[in-house]
Amino acid sequence: MFENRQKRTELAELGEFKLINRLTKNIANRQKSTILGIGDDAAILNFDQQQVLLSTDLLVEGVHFDLSYMPLKHLGYKAVMVNLSDIAAMNAIPTQITVGLAVSNRFSVEALEEIYAGMQLACDKHQVDLVGGDTTSSTSGLILAISVLGTANPKDIVKRSTAKQGDLIVVSGDLGAAYAGLLLFEREKAIFAKDPTIQPDLAGYEYVLERQMLPEARVDMVHRFKEMDLIPTSMIDISDGLASEIIHLCEDSLLGCTIYEEKIPIDPQTVTVADLFKIHPVTCALNGGEDYELLFTVSQKDFEKINGQGEFYIIGHMNETGSERTLITNANESIPLTAQGWDGMKKKD
Amino acid sequence: MFENRQKRTELAELGEFKLINRLTKNIANRQKSTILGIGDDAAILNFDQQQVLLSTDLLVEGVHFDLSYMPLKHLGYKAVMVNLSDIAAMNAIPTQITVGLAVSNRFSVEALEEIYAGMQLACDKHQVDLVGGDTTSSTSGLILAISVLGTANPKDIVKRSTAKQGDLIVVSGDLGAAYAGLLLFEREKAIFAKDPTIQPDLAGYEYVLERQMLPEARVDMVHRFKEMDLIPTSMIDISDGLASEIIHLCEDSLLGCTIYEEKIPIDPQTVTVADLFKIHPVTCALNGGEDYELLFTVSQKDFEKINGQGEFYIIGHMNETGSERTLITNANESIPLTAQGWDGMKKKD
Repeated sequence: MFENRQKRTELAELGEFKLINRLTKNIANRQKSTILGIGDDAAILNFDQQQVLLSTDLLVEGVHFDLSYMPLKHLGYKAVMVNLSDIAAMNAIPTQITVGLAVSNRFSVEALEEIYAGMQLACDKHQVDLVGGDTTSSTSGLILAISVLGTANPKDIVKRSTAKQGDLIVVSGDLGAAYAGLLLFEREKAIFAKDPTIQPDLAGYEYVLERQMLPEARVDMVHRFKEMDLIPTSMIDISDGLASEIIHLCEDSLLGCTIYEEKIPIDPQTVTVADLFKIHPVTCALNGGEDYELLFTVSQKDFEKINGQGEFYIIGHMNETGSERTLITNANESIPLTAQGWDGMKKKD
Repeated sequence: MFENRQKRTELAELGEFKLINRLTKNIANRQKSTILGIGDDAAILNFDQQQVLLSTDLLVEGVHFDLSYMPLKHLGYKAVMVNLSDIAAMNAIPTQITVGLAVSNRFSVEALEEIYAGMQLACDKHQVDLVGGDTTSSTSGLILAISVLGTANPKDIVKRSTAKQGDLIVVSGDLGAAYAGLLLFEREKAIFAKDPTIQPDLAGYEYVLERQMLPEARVDMVHRFKEMDLIPTSMIDISDGLASEIIHLCEDSLLGCTIYEEKIPIDPQTVTVADLFKIHPVTCALNGGEDYELLFTVSQKDFEKINGQGEFYIIGHMNETGSERTLITNANESIPLTAQGWDGMKKKD
């Protein structure tokens, strides 16, 4: 639907080594911890006295992304950002990634170059080095497997399991927009399937579309916390929806919580789209996912540090062990929070 | 063909979190460098003064493995070993892995448990910690994405690019057997497709079948080199076949080489199978791949350290920059070595 017709070089024309050379020729290393990048059996890294964070994510075509509306460059960008977000969620700075790419012959060399261009853009933004990977064929579709390393001083690392009773629950930005963007893309795809002559009608929805297509890992928050001399008591990134992530913090910290509907930040454009689809906007925030904002808890003694900063939203508080996980609605009803489970598996059911 | 009928629990019955809990419930961390394993946004690691090695591999169903003759437990074992081999090839000790698993609904929970059981067996053997990962659905087939970390003292790390003219070329074991095993499995599969009542006839070929199904990463060699006070001048593991790997060492070290057919170690069972399929046994060694032996170069001054050790095979020597990469046959003919390219892409062509 947003197809870009250009030169097509078949993967078989190049072969493995030429392909890897072509995809990685512009990659330069910038991290002091990168001793040797792409090109040997393994990358060589040196983290000195820092602790190392490691995370892996898979993105599977038809499950996590749909190439009928996701440009390949955006896909590469998003795939990296999703991984950097996991490191930010530990209050750490991402430093290196490796990229595993499985592709069917349906994809050209130029298509893979687009994906790499997007990945490099995301790496450039955060000074992350792409230090290795594997490119292979797949019997169908496109799979991206990215692993990310990051570093932090041991005392700065924030886990999910360390929230305390009475801590404030905070988010770093508005929620539900990425899901609103997805709803619009899915609608346009359905319209296009019926009548390919109809052009996409997405004007006025730029914010929610960008939140879906080009999410930003909140690595800036890790720097911001340092400036503010603030260490959250627990943290997670919002990939699956606010409800599911809050439940993670509660379960891992063995606590209950209360959050307030009126405190959940939702952009007006998200509200407009939710109305259009006859969904309650808070449902987009609770169950939508893919916002990649940080959800964290802070001690009440740090209230003054975050209050009135504009960039933080206090949405509730952690309660004693054994208590419920509850949403207080604007009508002052108390509703138990439930995880919507596995977005990956969900879409297959 | 070697199917195992047992209880089948659908993935959808469990959901993401219960599935991950079930797959990872027996995983214990043993490495001093593992501070926090599975269960947060990222694993936390501490490598102190050691350097860190990082590598990633993808294994795709229908490209890298065929479940009609590869039991899932063996697949898990092999997937880990293939990755550990990359760390051994840097003369380093593997310490942690992360596992990305994309599966279609065709697979049951029990099937994934089998894969994990195989992975844990390989991890146990080398005291490697499984510290994280991602499990998601795939639109078709099974994909395994494994990343591995390892450590070494900076002075011990061996790259591909540091061989010197005159260095001896050495391999750590016999070659071509894994490919001979593959030939047998493919033959049995073809027979089974024609007549499913015929039982596999694989007696007497145990060694080559095991080399294909249960390869061993030569991490023991890393310890052995330390005992012998030997640091190879360059090293690579043999995943794609001897010819292709030697060319890597030559290209990265900017050298030529000569190897001798009569020096290449080939097991008698490999010769028997090669004869059966009317293939020259040395072709299995040169182009077969998947042996996961180490190919390395040593300085001539270290000749006495490796000569007559039984466990090492000196097969040739590195020559000056600009010279050919040559095989001297038993008939004393000189043949240029050529890489067979990309086994992943190959099988699709």
